[in-house]
Amino acid sequence: MTSPDRLPDLTPYIEQGRRDLAALVALESVSAQGRMLPETADEVTRLLEAEGFTVRRFPGQVAPVLLAEAGEGPRTLLIYNHYDVQPETPSELWNTPPFVLTEADGRLYGRGASDDKGEFAARLAAVRALRSMHGGTLPLTIKWLIEGEEEVGSPSLAGFVEAHAADLMADGCWWEFGSVSDEGRPVVSLGLKGIICLELRCKVADSDLHSSLGAVIDNPLYRLSRAIASMRDDSGRVTIPGFYDAVRSPSEADLQALESLPDARPPLQHNYGVRGFLGNADAREVSRRSNFEPALNVNGLHGGYGDAGSKTVLPASGFAKIDFRLVPDQDPAEVVRLLRAHLNAQGLSDIEIVELESHEHAARSDVAHPFVQTALRAARESYGQEPVVHPSAGGSGPMHPFVEHLGVACVAMGIGNVGGRVHAPNENIRTEDFASGVKFGVVFMDALSRA
Amino acid sequence: MTSPDRLPDLTPYIEQGRRDLAALVALESVSAQGRMLPETADEVTRLLEAEGFTVRRFPGQVAPVLLAEAGEGPRTLLIYNHYDVQPETPSELWNTPPFVLTEADGRLYGRGASDDKGEFAARLAAVRALRSMHGGTLPLTIKWLIEGEEEVGSPSLAGFVEAHAADLMADGCWWEFGSVSDEGRPVVSLGLKGIICLELRCKVADSDLHSSLGAVIDNPLYRLSRAIASMRDDSGRVTIPGFYDAVRSPSEADLQALESLPDARPPLQHNYGVRGFLGNADAREVSRRSNFEPALNVNGLHGGYGDAGSKTVLPASGFAKIDFRLVPDQDPAEVVRLLRAHLNAQGLSDIEIVELESHEHAARSDVAHPFVQTALRAARESYGQEPVVHPSAGGSGPMHPFVEHLGVACVAMGIGNVGGRVHAPNENIRTEDFASGVKFGVVFMDALSRA
Repeated sequence: MTSPDRLPDLTPYIEQGRRDLAALVALESVSAQGRMLPETADEVTRLLEAEGFTVRRFPGQVAPVLLAEAGEGPRTLLIYNHYDVQPETPSELWNTPPFVLTEADGRLYGRGASDDKGEFAARLAAVRALRSMHGGTLPLTIKWLIEGEEEVGSPSLAGFVEAHAADLMADGCWWEFGSVSDEGRPVVSLGLKGIICLELRCKVADSDLHSSLGAVIDNPLYRLSRAIASMRDDSGRVTIPGFYDAVRSPSEADLQALESLPDARPPLQHNYGVRGFLGNADAREVSRRSNFEPALNVNGLHGGYGDAGSKTVLPASGFAKIDFRLVPDQDPAEVVRLLRAHLNAQGLSDIEIVELESHEHAARSDVAHPFVQTALRAARESYGQEPVVHPSAGGSGPMHPFVEHLGVACVAMGIGNVGGRVHAPNENIRTEDFASGVKFGVVFMDALSRA
Repeated sequence: MTSPDRLPDLTPYIEQGRRDLAALVALESVSAQGRMLPETADEVTRLLEAEGFTVRRFPGQVAPVLLAEAGEGPRTLLIYNHYDVQPETPSELWNTPPFVLTEADGRLYGRGASDDKGEFAARLAAVRALRSMHGGTLPLTIKWLIEGEEEVGSPSLAGFVEAHAADLMADGCWWEFGSVSDEGRPVVSLGLKGIICLELRCKVADSDLHSSLGAVIDNPLYRLSRAIASMRDDSGRVTIPGFYDAVRSPSEADLQALESLPDARPPLQHNYGVRGFLGNADAREVSRRSNFEPALNVNGLHGGYGDAGSKTVLPASGFAKIDFRLVPDQDPAEVVRLLRAHLNAQGLSDIEIVELESHEHAARSDVAHPFVQTALRAARESYGQEPVVHPSAGGSGPMHPFVEHLGVACVAMGIGNVGGRVHAPNENIRTEDFASGVKFGVVFMDALSRA
């Protein structure tokens, strides 16, 4: 492994990487709204081709899928990133323009600065530096898969991975995200939760009615509230019968890994003003839930009057947007069936369930895998601190097809931070984490080429 | 009583009334948003002064209160109307511009066409005709109270009625609304429900979070849903302990009146596409609930993502707008206290209760009162059909101070219709009901002057 103190000066690569990132953030690639996706795929292609990659472009359901390849050597690294972003709403809560990369207070703000354009740009800068270190050639084969549908559930990816399994085969996969703790420790995840995004709809009439009719006509917002209240309890436990039947219990090794994790609560309280934790959970319980528990979240609920004052109206309809986070071995389709049966049993058969996006299964990789161990050693060397290792991140992503179809171990390592406001207004990365991420990339890929 | 067949030709008065109504609808007097209220008070004043009224203007909390007087005679009629309207949102569901009175399919469309500018304009046209019939003088004293805060709960009115009791004393009060059934029967109400408008707010963090944190951090939309689901059941019965303690049971005479009421369900199904009725209520049960049962309605519920697709966000906050409809002798302030205690007992003490508007008590007048009987006879004569008499309307209004401070009987009679979409998009009146309303006004006021 190349010692970090023997690396060339990375400053010009880091600066070029920030310019690349600014260009990418300027492209409003909101996949949920189909905005500027082909244009962003064009820019990513241009950046990769400039570094010697051969880029193939495939149609996706929502946006093009890019598969790039460069370099040669005994080792092959698969990198997975995405060029799409979450919607910028509520726009009025941003302190800077969402689609202008803006530096302030040691951070770079912008939609996608962290998730996931910042990760891509830092890795590309590392590839550039590594190639320069090796006289213009890459000492390993890099296969880079970049999609534009991650924020809408990667509907094309599982099929793509299955169809292109031979093209994607590798010694391991560097997953699209990761972070650095407030103490400067690299945070590594070896698994992801599954996800289901649904909309619940209720309609009681063709048009709004005077609210006095609430004495005799049902209320769609009451019915949606009843549905949501019936699906979980105050402690966060899902109360849909059968929901936990397929949940894989964590192993002793999984639970052991939790002991080394830092307390996740103080940074959430400090950065987001979080009022409290479900069930007054202590640090270990927060870690256990984050890694191993499925969950139900309501991400939107809308119906009726919402402006100033009040309006005495009985709304004709309303909707709730919910997401389930799943763990191995829950099956998303089975969870939707259980929800339908639950609502019917609750007398809520009139509530329509609309599946918003393709589902994702959960996945976990083995901490003992050689590729994982190489990544952890590189992180330890590069950051000078012991990595924080999560058996599973709390978030989701399409890791399951990689594990199922390719059988590769996946390691999520990157440049995010706990105050990064991913998916929310004022998304950001710390400027120093971008620089450290470039350095880690060089050390990691160099180490892998020699492993 | 002047027989309707001995009336002069009312056509020119009806046409002038429609021109007055068009001018009033054009004024966007949305009290919830403080729009164009003084301008509308000016126009109402101009119209009244043109008919010989002396108009006094008093400051209200939100909009000017107008008190006009004209005529003389042994009898005094108090008329109550309001010149403010509900918000026009959701504007995109209107088929015609909300603030342009538009005739189509035998109806006049526009915000306030029914509630309450149409009522005012029809009554003013009747006054004009009556004065003409009596050689330019009115044969009774008319006291006309017109406020601009009815749609935000009439915060100034109770105090105004109390302070001006002597100026308002009358033989009875003609209430601001009423309707004509699909069969052409005049629909008369002798009481109104009380109302409380509240906002429930819940906040779990200072900013939105990634939805993966739903495994460990509470969800404000779940908590609001839990609160709403805990406050009533699927049959519509309010489950807040103590809520029904002060409810006055209907008398035998009250219940007897229900027997003559038509089935309210078919027109609601036909005009609004209503799917069903709470508890599969039959016609009599719908009447009983509408007249004598309090109710809880959710008029708005908002938080988190609401655009296309989904956004995996844990919202920082959300709010629900609710209204309670009350019956005699429930006390609004006591109901708010009971709600607070209930939420606290449910473990929902973090949910903030914001009182949006002043509260209204319920009120009912006696069907045997001479003024009520004169109104019912005039309705019978004028419409040629037996009136439908509701002991209490399902809706609310500030009738309580009139009953309490003035001791006058109140009769609600007017030009609305069950498909009138009051408070909703495409508010309308039937053109024929406007004409019939002018005729009824002439017959009623003429009869009262001779009573």
